[in-house]
Parts: sequence; C-alpha cells; structure tokens
Amino acid sequence: MIVGKIAKKYLEENPWKIIENGFHSERSLVSESLFSLANEYMGMRGFFEEGYDKNSLIGTYYNGVYEKPKDVQTNHYKGISEKNHYMVNGSNFLYFRLYINDELYVFDENSVTDYQRILDFKTGESTRSYKIKDLLEITFKRVLDMNIYQVAHQQIQIKPIKYHGNIKIELGIDFSTQHWNKPGFWEVVEHRHQSSVGKTTTNQKLSVSYQVDMNLDIKSITSYHNKLNIETFSFDLAKEVIINKTILSLIDKNEDEDHIKTRESFNLPTYQESIESNKKFYEIYWKRNDIIIEGDLENQQGIRYCLFQLVNTYQGLSEKNNIGAKGLTGEAYSGHAFWDSETYVLPVYLFTNMKAAKNLLMFRYNTLMQARSRAIELDCKGACYPIATLNGDEACDLWQHASLQFQPTSGVSYAIWHYMNNSDNEAFLIQFGFEMLLEVARFFSSRGQYNSDHTKFGYYSVMGPDEFEMMVNHNTYTNYMAKKSMEYFIDSYHKHNQHPEIINLLSKLDFKEEELSSMIEKCDHMYIPFDQTTKLFEQHDGFYDLPHINIHDIPVTDFPLYSNWSYDRIYRNDVIKQPDVLMFLFLYNSEFDLSTKKANYDYYEPKTIHESSLSPSIHSIFATELGYKKQALDFFSFATRMDLDDYNRNTSEGLHLTSIAAAWINIVYGFGGLRSDAKILRLAPVCPISWESYIFNIEYFGVNINIKVSKTEIILSLDQDLLKPIQVFDQVYYLEKGMKKIYVGN
Amino acid sequence: MIVGKIAKKYLEENPWKIIENGFHSERSLVSESLFSLANEYMGMRGFFEEGYDKNSLIGTYYNGVYEKPKDVQTNHYKGISEKNHYMVNGSNFLYFRLYINDELYVFDENSVTDYQRILDFKTGESTRSYKIKDLLEITFKRVLDMNIYQVAHQQIQIKPIKYHGNIKIELGIDFSTQHWNKPGFWEVVEHRHQSSVGKTTTNQKLSVSYQVDMNLDIKSITSYHNKLNIETFSFDLAKEVIINKTILSLIDKNEDEDHIKTRESFNLPTYQESIESNKKFYEIYWKRNDIIIEGDLENQQGIRYCLFQLVNTYQGLSEKNNIGAKGLTGEAYSGHAFWDSETYVLPVYLFTNMKAAKNLLMFRYNTLMQARSRAIELDCKGACYPIATLNGDEACDLWQHASLQFQPTSGVSYAIWHYMNNSDNEAFLIQFGFEMLLEVARFFSSRGQYNSDHTKFGYYSVMGPDEFEMMVNHNTYTNYMAKKSMEYFIDSYHKHNQHPEIINLLSKLDFKEEELSSMIEKCDHMYIPFDQTTKLFEQHDGFYDLPHINIHDIPVTDFPLYSNWSYDRIYRNDVIKQPDVLMFLFLYNSEFDLSTKKANYDYYEPKTIHESSLSPSIHSIFATELGYKKQALDFFSFATRMDLDDYNRNTSEGLHLTSIAAAWINIVYGFGGLRSDAKILRLAPVCPISWESYIFNIEYFGVNINIKVSKTEIILSLDQDLLKPIQVFDQVYYLEKGMKKIYVGN
Repeated sequence: MIVGKIAKKYLEENPWKIIENGFHSERSLVSESLFSLANEYMGMRGFFEEGYDKNSLIGTYYNGVYEKPKDVQTNHYKGISEKNHYMVNGSNFLYFRLYINDELYVFDENSVTDYQRILDFKTGESTRSYKIKDLLEITFKRVLDMNIYQVAHQQIQIKPIKYHGNIKIELGIDFSTQHWNKPGFWEVVEHRHQSSVGKTTTNQKLSVSYQVDMNLDIKSITSYHNKLNIETFSFDLAKEVIINKTILSLIDKNEDEDHIKTRESFNLPTYQESIESNKKFYEIYWKRNDIIIEGDLENQQGIRYCLFQLVNTYQGLSEKNNIGAKGLTGEAYSGHAFWDSETYVLPVYLFTNMKAAKNLLMFRYNTLMQARSRAIELDCKGACYPIATLNGDEACDLWQHASLQFQPTSGVSYAIWHYMNNSDNEAFLIQFGFEMLLEVARFFSSRGQYNSDHTKFGYYSVMGPDEFEMMVNHNTYTNYMAKKSMEYFIDSYHKHNQHPEIINLLSKLDFKEEELSSMIEKCDHMYIPFDQTTKLFEQHDGFYDLPHINIHDIPVTDFPLYSNWSYDRIYRNDVIKQPDVLMFLFLYNSEFDLSTKKANYDYYEPKTIHESSLSPSIHSIFATELGYKKQALDFFSFATRMDLDDYNRNTSEGLHLTSIAAAWINIVYGFGGLRSDAKILRLAPVCPISWESYIFNIEYFGVNINIKVSKTEIILSLDQDLLKPIQVFDQVYYLEKGMKKIYVGN
Repeated sequence: MIVGKIAKKYLEENPWKIIENGFHSERSLVSESLFSLANEYMGMRGFFEEGYDKNSLIGTYYNGVYEKPKDVQTNHYKGISEKNHYMVNGSNFLYFRLYINDELYVFDENSVTDYQRILDFKTGESTRSYKIKDLLEITFKRVLDMNIYQVAHQQIQIKPIKYHGNIKIELGIDFSTQHWNKPGFWEVVEHRHQSSVGKTTTNQKLSVSYQVDMNLDIKSITSYHNKLNIETFSFDLAKEVIINKTILSLIDKNEDEDHIKTRESFNLPTYQESIESNKKFYEIYWKRNDIIIEGDLENQQGIRYCLFQLVNTYQGLSEKNNIGAKGLTGEAYSGHAFWDSETYVLPVYLFTNMKAAKNLLMFRYNTLMQARSRAIELDCKGACYPIATLNGDEACDLWQHASLQFQPTSGVSYAIWHYMNNSDNEAFLIQFGFEMLLEVARFFSSRGQYNSDHTKFGYYSVMGPDEFEMMVNHNTYTNYMAKKSMEYFIDSYHKHNQHPEIINLLSKLDFKEEELSSMIEKCDHMYIPFDQTTKLFEQHDGFYDLPHINIHDIPVTDFPLYSNWSYDRIYRNDVIKQPDVLMFLFLYNSEFDLSTKKANYDYYEPKTIHESSLSPSIHSIFATELGYKKQALDFFSFATRMDLDDYNRNTSEGLHLTSIAAAWINIVYGFGGLRSDAKILRLAPVCPISWESYIFNIEYFGVNINIKVSKTEIILSLDQDLLKPIQVFDQVYYLEKGMKKIYVGN
C-alpha cells in the first residue's frame, strides 16, 4: 500500500508493555530508541549503562539545552540563516562499569542468556535483565520521575549464580558524551564527590549529582578522569546486591528569568517512591487519555505506545518547551521543533490538555522577536517563524527549506484560530494572539507578489508541505494558508480594533489602515487554482505538466528516495512526498465538499510515497471520510506502529514524536470523525471492520467525553454537563453528564 | 545604461602602459590586481614586497596547483559534489624587508613621495618607485619571463638622497602565505640556502629557489624561521645599490606523466636577458594580435590591457591548463575554470592561436573520466562537465549551480563544433572529439524528461545561463543547446560510424542503435517555445508571468543584488542577470533572422542588470548588429575598462579574465561583425561614430588577416593567399596575399 514500507517485527505483543525477548544485535539502536524514557524536562535513550562497544548512542537530552556549531559556515548570501543550533547530548549519568575478578565486563551478546527488556506504560519503568554465562544474573531498572522531573533513578541488581568472588563496580557521571559521533561539547567546570557540572559554549549549565543507596555497607573511592567522575565500590559477592542511584539534573539555561533550584532544595524520592508516584500519574493519564481498541492487539499496543511517548515528551510544563521531531530520544533533526507542533501536535492537546495547548502557542509568542528578525533577513516585514528551532532562531541551514517554506508562519496563525475556535480564551487573543496574527499577516502581505499583469497575487519561489517540489510558484497550500492568515487577522482587527490594549498595540506597531486595505486587495487577488469541473486544486503552477512517474515502477531498493536519488532528481517529476493540497483540505476540512475531497485524494494519493512519517495519518483520515476502509486501516496501522516496526528504517535515530501525535489525530479525526475547524464540533465515528470496538477520550470546554464506538452504537459518556452543542453525524446534541447512546446502522 | 555601474578612474591614460601616479590607499587592492603579471605557468599580484600592513593580498599562483578544503562538508544528499578544490596561494618569493639604521621600514603612505607605478605592455615589466621622506629613493621592478616561464625576476634599487648610514635588507621565500585570510596551507619540507620546498595536502610540491646579483660585494647570512627562509645583507649605503633576485619555481603536480625539471637543468637568464626576450615575445604578439583604436585613447588603453592580460593568462602551453575566471590574479572563484572557457575564451584563440584553442578542448578530453563520474553521481549517463573545476572534478559546492547548470556540458559540444567549423582537423574529431560528443549527447539524453502527456521533451529543475532564475523547467537555452549537442553527435555518428577507430570506440562504449533512435526522438520533441508572431523565445516555462520589476526602480545602493537582496528574492521576478535567450542567439547567430534578434534583444535587454561581467559584451555585439550604436559603444567601453575603472567594485579580488576575453569578442564580433558559426566566415565591420578607425587581426586557416575599418573603407591585409572564401557583408571574396580595399557607405 505504501510503496517501499515493510514492517520489521520483533517485539512481543502486549496491551500495556513493550517486551524484547532475547537480544537483537542488528536492532540495538532501534531498541535504544524504543526504550527511551522522558518527562518533557529531560529524556534518555535506552542505552546500555554497562557499556556496549557496538552500535550505541549514549544519549540524554534536556529540553531547550543546546549548542551552536563550532565552525558556523559563513556564506555570502543575505537571508541564509547562520543561527544554526541543536539540542546537545547531555551527560551519561547512568555510567556503570562492572569488573568480575578484576576483569572489565562489557556487554557481549555471545556471553549472555535469558535476555529480556520490558517497558511498562503504567509506571514508566524500563527493566532489562540477563545472565552472564552461568556466573551472574544482572538486572538494570530505570525510571524518570513524572512529577519531580529533575529526578532519574537507576537500579542495578547483581545476583550470583555460580560466581562468588570479587566484584568491583563504578558508578559515575560522564560528560565526554558524543554528539553525532563528535565529542567535546561539554566543558566540565566542576567535579565533586557524586556531582559534576558541565557548560556549553552557549553558556548553559548542566549540573548532575546523585546519591547511592545499597544493601551493602561499603565505602567508595571517588576519582576524576578528565570529563568522567567515577565512584568505585569493591566487594565480595555473596548474595544479591541491589544498588539504587538517584540522579538529580539541574539546568541553567542562561536566561534572565531562570529560577535555578539548588540541589539542597530537593528532598530526593527513593526509587520506590518515584514508581508509586508515577503509577498515580499514569493512572490519571490513562483514565483521561487512553485509547482502547478491542479486537486488534497490534494496534492496541501501537496506539498506547504512542500515547505513552507523547506524554513523556510534552505535557505543557513550560512555555519555553516545544516538541522536537524526535522528542528527547535522539539527535536526528537536532531536537528542533517544526510546524508539526501547530498542525499535528496541537490538536492532541487542544482535546486533552488545554494548558499544554496554550503553552505551545506561548512558545511562539515568546519567540516573536526572533521571527521578526528573520522576516527582516528575508527582506520582508512582520514575522517569519522558523522551519526548525529550539530557541526561536532559524536553525535550519538549508536555505531551500528555511527561506522558502512558510508553513510554520501560517501554522501559527492557524493554531491561534484553531485554539480560539475551541476555547473561550479571548484574553489570550488580546494579550498574545493578536500581535502574532498581525505580524504573520504582515509577513504574508510583504512576501507575496503580483504576477506580470497584476491579476494574480501569490508566492513565488516557495516550497510547500510537499518537500519534493522546490522553488515553485503559486503553491496552492501556501497561497491558501496565507490568504486564511491575512483574513483571520483582518477579521480580528475589525472585531477588536476598539479594545484599549489593541489600540495601543496597533499604535506601537505602527499599523495603518493602508496596510489593511493592501492586505484585503491581496486576499481578493490570491490565486487558488481550482477547476470546477474536475474539482481539483493544482498543487502549484505547472504541476499537471510535470514528467510523470508511476510510483509502483520505482524499485523498492530506491527508497527512501532522499538517500538513493540524486538530490535534484527528487524534484523534477510528479511524485510527492506528503500531503500538500490534501493538507489544507484537512486543516479547513469543513470548507470543502466531499466530491472535492474525493477528487483530490484520488488524484494525489497515488502520487504520494509518504516519505514523511506524517503523511499516512492524514491520508487515513481522508480514506475513512471517503469510505476507503481498507486503506484507512492500513495507513493507521502504519502510523501507530511506525517506530515499533521500524517502517522507515530510521527509528535507530530516535522516535518520530510528531508522527506519534499524528497517530492520535489519525484515530480521533479519522475513525472518530472529529472535525474541529467549524463553528460546531462534529463527530462521525465508524468502527473498522476488523475491530470489535474502540474507545477514545476528548476534553471539550472542560468536559471529559469518553466515546465508545462499536459497529452498532456510539456511547458518549460525559463527566459534567456540556454547555456547547456537539454534532454527531448530521444531528446536533446538547449533552449532559452521564451516558448517551446513539445507534448506527450496521 | 547599465544600472548601478559607475567608473572609478584614477590611472593615467596611455596607449601602451598603465600608470598610477601617487599612491591610492583606498585602491591598494585594486592596484594589486591591475598590476598582476602572469605567464600561464604562474602569476603574481602586484603586492608590495617590502610589506604593507593595510589592505594587501600577497598572492602568487601556479596553474593547476590546488588544495582541498580541510573540513569537507559531508552532506546526506546524493549528487551534491564533495570534491571541492581551489587554486592555492603559493609562496611569497619576492619577500623583502628593509632596515634603515636598524629600524624596520614598512610601506607607509604618509612618509613617501613621488610614488609612481607603471606596467609596460611591451615588456611585461612592472616598475614602482618612490622616495622615503628625503632619505632614500627606492625602485622595485619585477618581470616574469614569457619564454622560460619558471623564472621571475625582482630588481630593487636603493638610492641614497640624504641618508648614508647602515642598511640591512632581507630577501627570502615565505611559505606562510594566507589563502582567503587563512594561513597554514603549505608544509615546508625543505629549507636550504636560497631554496625552499613546500607541499600541499594534495601532495603537490612547489620548489622555489633563487640567486642574487648585487653591485656590492658582501656576504649574506641565511636563517630559517618556521615557513620563512631569509637571507640578510648588511652594508653602509654610499651609492645606489641594485639588487637582482632571479627566482625559479618548479612544481610537481603529483601526476604520473610529470617531467619534473631540476634546478640544475636551468641556465637562469639575467634580469636584462629576460626583458630582452620578453620584448621579442611581445613584439610578435602585438604584431599578430594588436587592436588599434584611433580616436579613443581610453578604449585603446582598455583593449590593449585586456590583450596583455589575456596572453599573460593563457597561451596554450599545456593541455592541463585552463583559464580561471580570475586567471592567476586572485583567489575569488578559487582559480576555477567555468563554461566561459568554451563560450567566451575559445573564440579568441580560434582566431589567434589554434594550438591554444585545441589545448582548451584537450583539457576537457583529459577530464572526461571525471565528467563521467559526475554524470553517475547525478543518476545520469554519459558525461557531465563541471561548472567549476581545476582538475576536472566538480569543485562547486553549491548544488543549485553544480547540479542544475549544464552550460559546461553543452559548451564542450559547442566548442568542438565551433573548432571543427573553423579548422580542418578531422583527426582531432576522430581521436578525441567524437568520444566527448557521444558522452555529452548521452548525458543530455538521460537527464531530459518528457512532460506528462509525452508531447514535449526538455529539462526540468535547471538553471540556465541567467543565474537569477533557479530550478526552472524548459529553460530554452538548455533545451536548445541540448538539442544541438545531440544533433551534432547524431550527424557525426552518421558521418564517421564506419571509421575503424569509431567502430572500436562505439563498441567500447557499448553504444547501440536504440540509443541513437531515442536521441533522435528526443530531439524531435525538444520543446523550444518560440512565438511566430512576437518572434520571442520565452526564457523558460512561465517566465512571461513572473512578477515584473522595473530595473530602474531598484535603488543604486541595492547593487549588486547578490549581496544586498535576500538570496531567494533574486530569483522571483523577471530581472535577469545576464544573457540567456540572447546567449544561444549569439552562439548560433546565423540561424536567426534579424527580426528575431531584435525582438528578443528589445524584450530581454531592459530586464538585464549585467551582474555577470560577461553580459555587456554579448549585448554590445547585438546592439551593433541591430544598429543601436550608442548602446554598442557604451557596453564596449564597460567591457574593455571593467577592471581598470573597477566598474563591478571587486577588481580587488582579481581581474575578470574571462570578461577580458569577452572584450576581444566584443570588438571583433561586435564592431568587426565576425560570424564564425556558419559554413562561411563572415565579416560586417562598422566603425563607431566617435572613432576614426580601428584595426584588428584574425588568423584563419593559417593566414593572418589584418583588418582596418574606417568610416569609408575596410582594408583587409593578408600575409598569404587564403584558400577559404570569406564573406564581407553580403559579398563572398577569395582573398589573396596583400591588401584588399572595400569601400563602404557615405
């Protein structure tokens, strides 16, 4: 169905866990990614603390802690961003070495048996155990505290089988971690007993300290080896030894408003206390957010894994945090947040966690200054939001993306609109939203151009969402979204321009009526190529005449095309990477009739190779709406298990966190038929033929709505009365606390 | 006329020299470039050997001696060249320091008077003299031997005025030269008395040695300071001291077939011997190549300067040499040869030095293997010639040029055709040309695509000669030239496919009839958008509908747009940088009627900002043909004096050597009306209104034709009978040795 995508299955199926039985050396990096843990503040990959000299990426990451390239490439061209920065690998605070009879043990697949690793979605605990020949049994456990999020725990159990001699272990903090195989990012500014402090060249500090609790009363020896801080314990192994290491990570981001907590202000929880507290956290989380699929264990495990990793990555702790494409699980995409945040991730939080949704918008408000500077770099006005960023600056050093893609900018406007459409938070619009809307509209007004005879306005030399077409003119997505962005600002202006705060703001930003009339004229002339007969939108000027490639004629070994085709070759044909026309049809779904959606899906889907992990979910949603049931479920299965089954062959580099959000959208907007872009929230749930039923939850104006969908009925359970109407299929309901059954035809 | 281009004049006018009276500190780098000397083998800028601590680029360069970047940027995309390399700055073999009474003297504009510098086109000698306060008078002379091209001379004359105390001088070789302000390229592998050897990381060696001849009998002391080899002389200044330093530079390019001469095999000429030998060299050169303009001293000086620098840069010494955009006079463009060599430079040598013309083609034959590899990198077949190169590999690290511009590849085919059209050298075609033609045709056959309904063949995602339009489809220049390349190969195939060497070659290259029929079909379908009514060629698909900018509305401070406009902004409008449609109308001039040339000139010229230094000449040629007399002369004056008057404000970085060749084309093809692309050579000379007359020379099938053009007559003087006919205006002549007068109107 999706060309060139084949599952690689090796994990045991289980509704609440992922389980790896036996060590899979060829998948060691994939497993490292899959067994990642995070709590938004920090994250760590499932690397082997005891050392593994083959494929391993020892990675720990802190949200918003970044480095800049040492040799910034200077270039001669204006507007090409030189503000590249990336989430830097932290310290290995789980550092552990084991000496058996004075011989260093390093994990070796040939000398271990009974290997098993489990990640538990109800506790966030990861457990890994194996036997070293018939000498020892060793178990590693780790967990991140979901409440006191500076705290990580490591538990190591060493149990003798036949070996009873000397054991030496080293616990430590290692700041000589590598980033993309390059070392030397941290300068260690302090080593003390059980504590080290590292500094980046961006002057951010990471202070790591720990305490150890063992069921043996022995003294340790501390030593420092360059960037490594080691504590050594030596003993004779008589019975099972259990070592608990509780690690505290404090970061100083070098921002004025940082309130740096001190080590002393923490009352560190024990391993068991964190497990108990996490259990409560996840109990509440699953109660409000669980998705239950009856009759499809694979997808059940898949979607729960997605939900687990989603809350690990982002729960709205801070306005300064965002969601990297790989979350906190790897170095690919450099930890950068993309326009995915507004288009794929925000809807999840809009219907599960409004505080987090607002904080995602606040991230853009807090980085408005950087977006203004970026617009100036591009010889434009207003604000141009970065295609990739951690700190608000444009971090993408590929000009063909950074200077040509405006999805992030229209995405901010769309996100504010989407948020306002599903909340009553007018204060947000006045205080924060309006200023962003104005600057976004200004940007689109200044970047656009009229064609030669001044009959069409639009965007020249752009790249739309489909990254397989570059420097095109009149990409319809860009034109359409720019028009929507300007129109939403114009509407907001007319609605609020008498508000005292807005009057001040307009004056401060020197906004005049002439600018408004110019925007109105540009909206009137915006070129949206739509053919009434075929109901097709042309993806961009000239798309229809591009050389055609039948995607099924491409040899499977050519995928991914990005790696196997000459860079320019990707762009010069009608193969598309991901939804482009379909993307704005998705975002403004309610504005288009079914025949338009069908025509465009039928035209563009067969040209799409889904080289973006975000692509299948959007297609699944349309497939459901259009009644293409098999396609819908196939796309969904891909989306929920993309990482578990390593469909894209790059899970090794980290989890596809934003696609994980798209999997939520897939089931809720797809099978659930949620539509949140019109005046009234709409549901149109259908149950895939191979499922018995499924259940999902949404929170809407403070009310939790639990929705169970089977083939014969839909049951909506509310924990309070809902003051807003909801439409289910064609019927409008005012729902009250309790249960509402709606029968549907089989 | 050309927006944003204003002359900066400061040199004294003279028909045979350039003269700088008084030191111009703000132009020190410009003067360094202007007073450059070269002899194809090596070149040196007019830097101050005594040291100047302000703006200076101490540069010496050797044809084909290059370095590779130390940190090659690896990228994830296939087809993006990683073979960057650049002509490396050699040693400062003119190193000189002067101590007056033990105090180091460094050139200081405030303490010198009577400063004058002269470059003599009849000897290639550069002389610089000034007085240091009322103490000393000092004169620096330098010359490169045009015959024994490994030899450079430096002569320093120190004449006392009021100072009669101790003088200490240092002569030496300095390998700590910088390249683009970065030092450390040379590893010194040997220092000896009067000799040092440096090595690049590409394992090329530069061995520099010298001998000194003085009119004082004193011993020197030699010392080595890291990369600096110094010889110190100390004496009391009683009378004028004259120091002659003769420098020998030997290079070992680390190529198998290098025949490295030893130092001992040279019988070094004295300064005066080299001057005498150069005088003879230039006497012959000017006799055969001079262009005389009567009644326009500015342009007389300008065109002679061009001719002087042209022979300094290239005279066809070796098949391995080519012509960098800046020759051997600076580091901009990294010493790379571009498609300029075939399109702008080759015609000069076709009509002045056939051996050099052939060697330029041989450079491409000798690098055919690299061009084949490059085609494979681009997922294509055949050979793709690099946009920029020293050694045959693609050295341009901007994929948008290196992967999208095919002017070099069609240029090779055009150059072979042009050469064959003006010579009888069939052996060249069989032995070398045919193989290139085949591989070029193969490339164009494989890189092109049919549009969606298979009615048009052409090139998608390309950049034509106009570098202000990127990733366009059906750039007419590219389509047209590709068609011509394939057709010329097809013709050659039909003509020669029974030749035994060609039969072998076709078999070796596995060329089948099917490939030929596919090429024929592609030529038949090649899309060349020409409107019979308007007579216009559209530059590329969609050009007419691009946003329009009136180039006269652009503020002068915005030029050059490359530096002052956001990178993407340059591409999204109808402003063009240089001729594109006009370029193929120039190359195949005889195929187009006057009304077509006029229509396209009138349409495209007003959109052209000539940000390429190669642009004005081509426009001047058309302006003459179309009778736009003022424009023709204005463009010509720009072309001949572009560097002397620093029109582009970047002569500091080096001379525009290929534009210097274009100045020759400008007068010969422009005012002279030479057309060399049809079966019969044609002349149509006109004399600009403000000139009395002008004279130029061409060599055609071994015959030197001297052409004097005044307003009333054209005098052709031949040194032998010419066996080929020549057309002058509409009349065909068979010319014999001696003089032929042709009278022209009024």
